[in-house]
Amino acid sequence: MSVIDAERDAMRRAFELALGGPRGENPQVGAVLLSATGEVLAEGWHRGAGTAHAEVDALSKLPAGAARGATAVVTLEPCNHTGRTGPCAVALIEAGIARVVYAVADPGDASSGGGERLRAAGVDVVGGVLEEDGIRLLESWLTVQRLQRPHVTVKWAQSLDGRAAASDGTSQWITGPEARADVHLRRADADAIIAGTGTVLADDPALTARRPDGTLYEHQPRPVVLGTRAVPQEAALRRHPRPFMQDEGEDLPDLLDRLRQLGAHRVFVEGGPTIASAFLRAGLVDEVLVYLAPTLLGGDRLAVGDLGIPTISAQRRLDVRAIERLGDDLLVVATPKEAP
Amino acid sequence: MSVIDAERDAMRRAFELALGGPRGENPQVGAVLLSATGEVLAEGWHRGAGTAHAEVDALSKLPAGAARGATAVVTLEPCNHTGRTGPCAVALIEAGIARVVYAVADPGDASSGGGERLRAAGVDVVGGVLEEDGIRLLESWLTVQRLQRPHVTVKWAQSLDGRAAASDGTSQWITGPEARADVHLRRADADAIIAGTGTVLADDPALTARRPDGTLYEHQPRPVVLGTRAVPQEAALRRHPRPFMQDEGEDLPDLLDRLRQLGAHRVFVEGGPTIASAFLRAGLVDEVLVYLAPTLLGGDRLAVGDLGIPTISAQRRLDVRAIERLGDDLLVVATPKEAP
Repeated sequence: MSVIDAERDAMRRAFELALGGPRGENPQVGAVLLSATGEVLAEGWHRGAGTAHAEVDALSKLPAGAARGATAVVTLEPCNHTGRTGPCAVALIEAGIARVVYAVADPGDASSGGGERLRAAGVDVVGGVLEEDGIRLLESWLTVQRLQRPHVTVKWAQSLDGRAAASDGTSQWITGPEARADVHLRRADADAIIAGTGTVLADDPALTARRPDGTLYEHQPRPVVLGTRAVPQEAALRRHPRPFMQDEGEDLPDLLDRLRQLGAHRVFVEGGPTIASAFLRAGLVDEVLVYLAPTLLGGDRLAVGDLGIPTISAQRRLDVRAIERLGDDLLVVATPKEAP
Repeated sequence: MSVIDAERDAMRRAFELALGGPRGENPQVGAVLLSATGEVLAEGWHRGAGTAHAEVDALSKLPAGAARGATAVVTLEPCNHTGRTGPCAVALIEAGIARVVYAVADPGDASSGGGERLRAAGVDVVGGVLEEDGIRLLESWLTVQRLQRPHVTVKWAQSLDGRAAASDGTSQWITGPEARADVHLRRADADAIIAGTGTVLADDPALTARRPDGTLYEHQPRPVVLGTRAVPQEAALRRHPRPFMQDEGEDLPDLLDRLRQLGAHRVFVEGGPTIASAFLRAGLVDEVLVYLAPTLLGGDRLAVGDLGIPTISAQRRLDVRAIERLGDDLLVVATPKEAP
């Protein structure tokens, strides 16, 4: 096996190692140290904010001096940043690493430049190896870096004429089982799920991600309740496998920042109309999911409230990404036309 | 050519003749009289309410006695009804017709039974010849007979969240050129187009059916304005090729009945929200066309107003017949689930 093939194999192994760490505030990163002839010397991965980075974790498994002349295969460009740990680029240089191969360039303002620093120190640096796989692995984290906050999906179900409920507030079931199953699947892909106290008090949602048979998906989003009213002791929400967080909902950018710090990459805003409208009004929405039921309701229970749009030129145009038929219902997946 | 083949050829010719008459309160009917050996003796068609029926029109072209022993090929079962003209069944019997071939059975309560009457008089009667072509020819008229009123399509354009305009009333253009072209094509298929005075005063619509280049389609729906406010002298509507009719809009079944008597088979209800909601509330809608623009507007300018639906069990479920992407927009074609 050529050295290049050995490096690609090591990169695939590094992706596996990366998944051993948590998806959170820091990226999931894996590292494999190879000898100059391509044998595996050590492996490492990052176990979350405040712990050793993957490269340093791998180096720590070798006796002093044993990495001299070795190749470091890392899923993300080694950092150039002194945070809770020192820059990985420096650690690699000091360990005498001769060559660094990475998949994805570091997009961080503070942390990037590791490749340059390594090159300046005479290390042979190759980026972009199996880059697509690396981007897939880090997709949600990269989105957070780009947006400087978690990715926000706002979901609502409505009648064709834009109502969330009949005049007396009854709404079960506007959409059918296929649409509801789709919602739960998407919840399972989120790190936090947001609902207002109005919805919690009116509908008593569990805010869990459930399979059609009622069992829980492995990954559950952290429930977040917005509003000042108390969540009743008997609320279904209190039986969620993850404890809920309550927030006044007065400062949505601050809330999203705190969720990011807690490791949330993807936030799912579920209900109801007040909360959905608040996120839309604030321009904090990256994806809109509208489940359209083939029914007319009329009346004043609107799925989306006031968005502060005085005139047609201020309309919030969307790009329709997908239209899916789910049983009798229709799902429109859209993104705001201009970045918020 | 066999006699049967001659009869089928004559039926095709009768369909052509039928189109010579107007689409209106009465069906379009054509008739061909054949000799016993299959030669064409005479042709006829119905020229609209109050004029001779097709069979009688054909008979009138022959000298007395010349139809004795002949075959009448008619697109619609000869009527058994004394209206402004006598029953065609009797006229055929009196003329000595030996055989009657028709495509479509007469669905009318008062007019049907012509076939039976002919048989009772010893005439050889065959129905259902080229029936599908006959039904296609008479489709809209047959619908009127079934519904006992014109077929009603209600169309509106809305943002994804169900608004027809921004808060200040501006709405041009929520939907794109493809959606507008589709609306005009469907207008050209209607016999009447209904708009409220509110829409007329706010938007000054021409209510014509236009090609994308602005030229008029051959067939133009009759414009009908609902409401008591006066249509301004300078209104575009006054330049419509057909004079508009104004109605208070207080009694929609009566309005539809008058339109039916004026020959309207298909009515297109265009705007705005008040008129659309009134037709929906009255259960007088056979088809709903919703042009969904990928945009959010919020606010209180709803595309559909109150429908008098107090609770979810009273929702107006629809069957989605088609979903079309028209440029950036989406068209949902739906029919009410239960017959209104």
